[in-house]
Amino acid sequence: LDYQHVQVPFEITLWIMLASLAKIGFHLYNKLPSVVPESCLLIFVGLIMGGIIYGLNDRSPPVMDSDIFFLYLLPPIVLDAGYFMPSRPFFENIGTILLYAVVGTIWNVFGIGFSLYGICQVKAFRLQDVSLLHNLLFGSLIAAVDPVAVLAVFEEIHVNEKLHILVFGESLLNDAVTVVLYKLFRSFCEMPTIKSMDVFAGVGKFFVVGLGGVLVGLSFGFTAAFTTRFTKDIRVIEPLFVFLYSYLSYLTAEMFHLSGIVAIISCAMGMKRYVEANISLKSHTTVKYFMKMWSSVSDTLIFIFLGVSTIGENHEWNWPYICFTVIFCLIWRALGVLVLTFFVNRFHVNTITSKDQFIIAYGGLRGAICFSLVFLLPDFHRKKLFIAATTVVILFTVFIQGMTIRPLVDLLAVKRKRETAPTVGEQIHIRFLDHLLAGIEDISGHWGQYYWKDKLEYFNSKYLQKILLREYDQPKSSIVLLYEKLERKHAIELAQAGQLSHGPAHPSFLCSAFLCSSSDRTVIRDQKLEDTLNPDVLDNIQEILARNLYRIRRTGPAYNRHTLPGDSEPTEHAKEILILRHKSL
Amino acid sequence: LDYQHVQVPFEITLWIMLASLAKIGFHLYNKLPSVVPESCLLIFVGLIMGGIIYGLNDRSPPVMDSDIFFLYLLPPIVLDAGYFMPSRPFFENIGTILLYAVVGTIWNVFGIGFSLYGICQVKAFRLQDVSLLHNLLFGSLIAAVDPVAVLAVFEEIHVNEKLHILVFGESLLNDAVTVVLYKLFRSFCEMPTIKSMDVFAGVGKFFVVGLGGVLVGLSFGFTAAFTTRFTKDIRVIEPLFVFLYSYLSYLTAEMFHLSGIVAIISCAMGMKRYVEANISLKSHTTVKYFMKMWSSVSDTLIFIFLGVSTIGENHEWNWPYICFTVIFCLIWRALGVLVLTFFVNRFHVNTITSKDQFIIAYGGLRGAICFSLVFLLPDFHRKKLFIAATTVVILFTVFIQGMTIRPLVDLLAVKRKRETAPTVGEQIHIRFLDHLLAGIEDISGHWGQYYWKDKLEYFNSKYLQKILLREYDQPKSSIVLLYEKLERKHAIELAQAGQLSHGPAHPSFLCSAFLCSSSDRTVIRDQKLEDTLNPDVLDNIQEILARNLYRIRRTGPAYNRHTLPGDSEPTEHAKEILILRHKSL
Repeated sequence: LDYQHVQVPFEITLWIMLASLAKIGFHLYNKLPSVVPESCLLIFVGLIMGGIIYGLNDRSPPVMDSDIFFLYLLPPIVLDAGYFMPSRPFFENIGTILLYAVVGTIWNVFGIGFSLYGICQVKAFRLQDVSLLHNLLFGSLIAAVDPVAVLAVFEEIHVNEKLHILVFGESLLNDAVTVVLYKLFRSFCEMPTIKSMDVFAGVGKFFVVGLGGVLVGLSFGFTAAFTTRFTKDIRVIEPLFVFLYSYLSYLTAEMFHLSGIVAIISCAMGMKRYVEANISLKSHTTVKYFMKMWSSVSDTLIFIFLGVSTIGENHEWNWPYICFTVIFCLIWRALGVLVLTFFVNRFHVNTITSKDQFIIAYGGLRGAICFSLVFLLPDFHRKKLFIAATTVVILFTVFIQGMTIRPLVDLLAVKRKRETAPTVGEQIHIRFLDHLLAGIEDISGHWGQYYWKDKLEYFNSKYLQKILLREYDQPKSSIVLLYEKLERKHAIELAQAGQLSHGPAHPSFLCSAFLCSSSDRTVIRDQKLEDTLNPDVLDNIQEILARNLYRIRRTGPAYNRHTLPGDSEPTEHAKEILILRHKSL
Repeated sequence: LDYQHVQVPFEITLWIMLASLAKIGFHLYNKLPSVVPESCLLIFVGLIMGGIIYGLNDRSPPVMDSDIFFLYLLPPIVLDAGYFMPSRPFFENIGTILLYAVVGTIWNVFGIGFSLYGICQVKAFRLQDVSLLHNLLFGSLIAAVDPVAVLAVFEEIHVNEKLHILVFGESLLNDAVTVVLYKLFRSFCEMPTIKSMDVFAGVGKFFVVGLGGVLVGLSFGFTAAFTTRFTKDIRVIEPLFVFLYSYLSYLTAEMFHLSGIVAIISCAMGMKRYVEANISLKSHTTVKYFMKMWSSVSDTLIFIFLGVSTIGENHEWNWPYICFTVIFCLIWRALGVLVLTFFVNRFHVNTITSKDQFIIAYGGLRGAICFSLVFLLPDFHRKKLFIAATTVVILFTVFIQGMTIRPLVDLLAVKRKRETAPTVGEQIHIRFLDHLLAGIEDISGHWGQYYWKDKLEYFNSKYLQKILLREYDQPKSSIVLLYEKLERKHAIELAQAGQLSHGPAHPSFLCSAFLCSSSDRTVIRDQKLEDTLNPDVLDNIQEILARNLYRIRRTGPAYNRHTLPGDSEPTEHAKEILILRHKSL
């Protein structure tokens, strides 16, 4: 027996196997996951395993290595989150999300840090040796909402899309703030004196870390898209590029002390559209499947490890500090959400209701990121107290909040996600309104969200697509393609119903589709067939129609005041923009 | 900049990226790969990279780590080979393959070992310090044909299926022999005296290593199939089990010093059938795609590393030893193939032609396995000579033989693989003949290949399927399913040709299919549609029809002499076998 030789891969495989089998086990009994979130069950499995290891070896079980967490377990989850991010609600609420992520997190860090420092001043608690800086450092790691925990809980409770994206987007984007504040306070702890310069440098660094992450991510994303232009003859390695480039973007960002999470999300969101157009359908299935698989396994492993690492002798128990940490985490989050939402609601028509605010505040779960960060702390005499407090906060949020959030959502009758996908008609209307609003903004000289979206779309179809896509197919033919697809669908249905005639048939509908240039007929047919189409086909139809609508707006004469039909050249367009800017000033 | 923190994953990702980009690069220029095999190009890239590293650092570039090769790079390739192994030609030729793999490899080992020892006795060559045991040890590592190299070259030259499976099967199954002989001679080298007991133990060990590998593989394979019975609610982690269990089988076999290659192949071949039936279509696409992707990347990395590792100061040059190694490798392989084929041809109707024999002998390429084994040798004063000789043999076989084998195949007009897939009619005929022959063997009491195949099929449908498959669906309905599939296919064609009528149609064909119980009509329709069906559909049809034919034989009254129609109980069957055995004795 030569165990040592195969130990590393063998143990990794066994852990992954354990995680997968645990997942299967939970799903065999359907009743359990409907009451207790999977994350709680997994932590529970981890606690039992940790207990067994502790009992057998009589020493603390191995703690989840922070390097393993940040380098191998976290990236798949974030990649999956970024790749499947619903981009429309995300960009519609980007302002609010950033406000929560940046201002909210800073608010929480300082709120928790200062009030814990206040607690430390009470002599009876015997905490006077914990300095303000250490409290702020602790605040910086405990303040951030954890994307893994949020995803695990919110995926099961199906709240409405906006609420979901607000909590989830915040948990992803606060990484930049957490990274900066955590590293800032850690280096302050080690410095003899702190100059005001250092504080300003820290503020400046936040922009570098966040925007740098976006830049790194986008450049890797576009490179990935460009690479998949050339994989036509060797389809089999296409999925690899999606994973390799995203992972490289994460590692590169980490290497330069930028936000890896922000980088990998930008990379995934940047590449998705082009990569999907370039790679084959089977490659795409593989990419989607493997991403989901990997993130699901990582997620499972994280929660199991969290449970295992909880057991042991790493903790120093101090009732007041730990209890007040939990209380302050709850209070400052609630206050932060209330205050920020007050300002957000003043500038929006579609306001965030008080029920939604409650769920946002209550959904601020902490998870494995805090846990890994607290173990990365430099050794000092109160580290074990911080570890204990972090563990309690995580277990409290995941177990108590995670288990009660579903009944609360039911009780408050929070608006749920709509069960049915929007009909094609609705989608077309939304798109149409987008273009209409972009046109209105264009004319009125108000540069809002629709205007920029439209500009981006123009830039995309004019330059990016030509560089990044394999063949820039004429959108004109796509309506015909759509028609063919629907026709095929219809034929399959006829065959399944056994109503197919085999003789030579009537003059085809396809010919008439060629003759009839308007897309109205297709739209009407859509509506009829719509409930028999699956979501993938619907998405596709939506895309095609949207692109065509866009083209109509771009090429149509009625939308441009200053150009004659047919001569809307880029230079003309530039002139138009100048005139508009002049007017708006 | 914090490079050290991300170094390991970053460099791994970069190497994989380099490999993938190299692959894309070769395929961009179509002319190059048609002359030079990809493996040569990759070694060439590796040589250049090695040269650059050597030039920059002024020291030998890092050598491919044998552990990395055996634990991480080899398993994906072998898994892919085992999973996509064409099982029919493999089992038809299993005797010949085993003869080549076991006897042929032993012949080569001793042939090369003893004749090199003879060379070492020539005083002028200054090799007298290389003992017989060391020569045999060297022979044991240089004798084995390499599956990675064979696959890389033979996938490009498209020889006929039998020839391909003979060379490829040999290269896979000789692993057991190589493992035993290599470890045996290595331990002999370290022992002070060798007893005859040790030699016998070595012979016995061969069976343990080979059959143990098969056993480990099959048990993991069946466990994998059993596990996928329960993944219905959580489709997304299905592909994981295929990879995890195969990898575990490999690692477990390696742990017990069994043949990992044999284990992973048995695992893949054992699980394939059941896993495919259990998992969803998308999971299956992912499994196939990822397997191909992984093996293709591993393969690329191996050849690049081979090139990189060649550069450096690991070599001791001795002209006679190196030249004679190459010559003996060629001679002993040729002799072995000739002698063994002579015996094989005496017992087979379908003989191996002399052209085929030449290609088998010439296709005995050496590759990365030899290379890794030579670096695993214990340190002794002539190790660098062995490394040099191994490198030369690998480069000679991959470059000279690999590049000339395609022109030789053209020149000799070796029978190629048939371009078109066999028609459904042909396939049905083959299956029908199989069942007929099984029946004849059954009646005549001759227990040949068809008899055992039939018994295995019976055991499979009676027990294994019920344990391992999610729902044991009635095969009766599958012909109806097939008919529906064909009907749908036809409908799509009609729609594409624009000949679909939209009115209420004639009485359906489907109804008449229900009424007409014989499968003849379907078969006739198959033939008509056959050239419009893709290979996947064809495979499926073949499977369904084969299963139905099998059922006919099982349940039909005409084939069993001793039972009345309808009462062929297992106990009756056992009686029948007893009577047959009695007669044949």
